[in-house]
Amino acid sequence: MSETGWSLHPQLCDDTALVGDLALSRVLAINDADYPWLILVPQRPGVSEIVDLGDAAAAELMAEIAQVSRVLKDVTQCDKLNVAAIGNVVPQLHVHIVARRKEDPLWPKPVWGAAPPRAGDKAAFERFTGAIRNKLGLAGVG
Amino acid sequence: MSETGWSLHPQLCDDTALVGDLALSRVLAINDADYPWLILVPQRPGVSEIVDLGDAAAAELMAEIAQVSRVLKDVTQCDKLNVAAIGNVVPQLHVHIVARRKEDPLWPKPVWGAAPPRAGDKAAFERFTGAIRNKLGLAGVG
Repeated sequence: MSETGWSLHPQLCDDTALVGDLALSRVLAINDADYPWLILVPQRPGVSEIVDLGDAAAAELMAEIAQVSRVLKDVTQCDKLNVAAIGNVVPQLHVHIVARRKEDPLWPKPVWGAAPPRAGDKAAFERFTGAIRNKLGLAGVG
Repeated sequence: MSETGWSLHPQLCDDTALVGDLALSRVLAINDADYPWLILVPQRPGVSEIVDLGDAAAAELMAEIAQVSRVLKDVTQCDKLNVAAIGNVVPQLHVHIVARRKEDPLWPKPVWGAAPPRAGDKAAFERFTGAIRNKLGLAGVG
């Protein structure tokens, strides 16, 4: 738990690898062989909905969504970004940013609510998270 | 088409009812008996991803997402809001804001990619869109 009283939900901790911390959000990655998949978690305690953040932090979250989206698109050269705050299972506010390709297994369906992630090659995943970390200026973190 | 060169994608036009226009986004509603469901469409031409909006309009979109989320939660007294920009089928940027209840048919799965909406009672839908319009200060529009 940080000095702000925030700590990452254990389910998010179990399911992801750390990329690093932006000013507001912790950036996480899911090792899914089919979908390059990042998650932003605003480091504010007790926040379940975007509206719980307040206006200033919500604007900051949007700026970080845009920043991470650009980097994910740049790294993956994907056809489409899918962005969502769902949180029906894990109540801590978290925003999925998933890179989609027209030839991926579920296209054009969303990835949420489908089969659990199929873990890919560990070295490839580490190259992916390293590239994201580097382009976000978080190199050396994590 | 408006003077800015923007027009609503025909698929979104076919699938929804008009609630009204905020400063940036057109607010639409889907008549789904199981899920109170709103959609925001930023009225900017040629925009497919959030990052295409630019920083100022992205911040404005987030403020409108928060405004509409508060109103939807207030009107429906839902358990959770689900917010997503997917756009794998309709390329015009549109943001879903769906009110979820723990007893709804798909809970806790997301609604996207599931069965098509099951249209509900027309009068009930009109009461819903009227309540949203009123609380957004858009009464008399649409």
